Amino acid sequence: MRAITLFDGELHFDADYTPRDTPVGLVEVKVLKAGICETDLQLKQGYMGFSGVLGHEFVGVAQSGRFAGQRVVGEINCTCGHCEFCQRELPRHCENRTVIGILNHDGAFADSLLVPEENLHAVPDNVQTEHAVFTEPVAAACRILEQTHINSDHSVVILGDGRLGNLCAQVISTTNAEVLVVGKHDWKLQRLNELDIRTTRLSDFQPALTADFVVDCTGSPTGFPLSLQAVKPCGTVILKTTVAAEQPLHLAPVVINEVQVIGSRCGPFAPALQMIADKTVRVESLITAEYPLDQAIHAFRHAEQPDTLKVLLHVSDSV
Amino acid sequence: MRAITLFDGELHFDADYTPRDTPVGLVEVKVLKAGICETDLQLKQGYMGFSGVLGHEFVGVAQSGRFAGQRVVGEINCTCGHCEFCQRELPRHCENRTVIGILNHDGAFADSLLVPEENLHAVPDNVQTEHAVFTEPVAAACRILEQTHINSDHSVVILGDGRLGNLCAQVISTTNAEVLVVGKHDWKLQRLNELDIRTTRLSDFQPALTADFVVDCTGSPTGFPLSLQAVKPCGTVILKTTVAAEQPLHLAPVVINEVQVIGSRCGPFAPALQMIADKTVRVESLITAEYPLDQAIHAFRHAEQPDTLKVLLHVSDSV
Repeated sequence: MRAITLFDGELHFDADYTPRDTPVGLVEVKVLKAGICETDLQLKQGYMGFSGVLGHEFVGVAQSGRFAGQRVVGEINCTCGHCEFCQRELPRHCENRTVIGILNHDGAFADSLLVPEENLHAVPDNVQTEHAVFTEPVAAACRILEQTHINSDHSVVILGDGRLGNLCAQVISTTNAEVLVVGKHDWKLQRLNELDIRTTRLSDFQPALTADFVVDCTGSPTGFPLSLQAVKPCGTVILKTTVAAEQPLHLAPVVINEVQVIGSRCGPFAPALQMIADKTVRVESLITAEYPLDQAIHAFRHAEQPDTLKVLLHVSDSV
Repeated sequence: MRAITLFDGELHFDADYTPRDTPVGLVEVKVLKAGICETDLQLKQGYMGFSGVLGHEFVGVAQSGRFAGQRVVGEINCTCGHCEFCQRELPRHCENRTVIGILNHDGAFADSLLVPEENLHAVPDNVQTEHAVFTEPVAAACRILEQTHINSDHSVVILGDGRLGNLCAQVISTTNAEVLVVGKHDWKLQRLNELDIRTTRLSDFQPALTADFVVDCTGSPTGFPLSLQAVKPCGTVILKTTVAAEQPLHLAPVVINEVQVIGSRCGPFAPALQMIADKTVRVESLITAEYPLDQAIHAFRHAEQPDTLKVLLHVSDSV
């Protein structure tokens, strides 16, 4: 099958890739569309030391099991079910997990991939495939609502106007908190303004230890220090993006202001799909471009540009 | 009056210091004994850019007000009472605060200091003065119990066998959690073993992402990275010590393991005094040496050695 693989930091288009995973106990999902995520760009930079088929945001058609023939999306953490964390209902932290397209599990930038049936969710008929591709990043934004108690009394500053910053802003706005997105790109901020979300340019932003919550979606080493300048004493900083490199940091403000810093990763698919289905979260204006799978290397180059939001890969029209 | 001052990173013994604070609305407290804290050593290194009289752990005799003539200890954050944080019952984060011996407020390494009456707590008659000096650091340890919900189901690793690590271990042990202190000094670990607290040498410690809570009391840049190796996914790291310098850090593990990092500073005096009074927390074995005030510069040199726990300053026998 066709696949986009990462080996030794280099992307390859392989027209005849042989899957390394055995399908025992897994459902083959023939891919329709997939999305390129910031994490994919970081993986290419060496994050997690991944090699194999990339891709963890996808919509496909299940080939067997209870979703056979249906469009599905898939949670990315594939778990053992019996370790301490699985038992404690923290399966996303399963100590034996593989992670689709990220850790020891071939991903979705291919004609098909293998997914545990319990990870699959059927896509409602009224949701377009290119919108359902956003389920995974919307779920990651929803994770913040599981980890915090943001409500309408709170002020929330979101640093970063990219894909994830946009989705976090939309998801957090469902709490009626006062949301402000800080970004560098007028057109990306404009997209948010069209959704009635308040924004400011980074150059105009004056952090003053006032925000109840700050969400770092910058994907940049500058995000965390700026978060600490923006969050109020005893406030909360949510780290959404992983920066692959070590960076010089000053932790004294965390102690002096008794800040709470929470790492936040993957989230629940069911509410995310629901938000996309009922258009609580609008994803259509996030799509910058769509490339066929065999043009994925160009698509990556495009996704790496600062003037993009989401770049999709079109794998197949129907299966 | 006599005072130990810090100017331009240099300690001075001043036999005739003129207090810079006006006593309006403040209670003069004649100092009996004071303690040298890790923060004092950091202040000497330039932390907070403090200049003036050092010292924030003290017992003295109030010269006026409702505690006149009584032995008192004093909370160190002097607050305005009307800013947002005072109103929100976070007075220790008052945006107009001074902090005794740390921020714009002369401290206790002197014959007397000035303290707001509401900061004072009477020392029970059955508590020795040299034990009551520990109220401030015991309160800082008690702060952890305000910020978390540690209970007997939890495992807690405390990194650091110094003054604060010892007190945090004792205070957290009151929850019946499974406490393990990791340290470098056999005799300090021995002090903890005598209190029935489990310890291990750093060289024998094998962090394995298993602790529910990790408390970083190392005062060292190595503490936080080690904390992230020890804490379990979705666990909590409590930062108790401030490291003055910027340090290279890798935050990706915070995100991947969804760790919660909580800065923790000053705590409540009332429960701390109670724990000292009823000997729930034993402080006597922490006293390494006591120097007269005019020998404070030698006392600091002693406190800077790794083979000390608490070094006290004796200011006056009675007032």
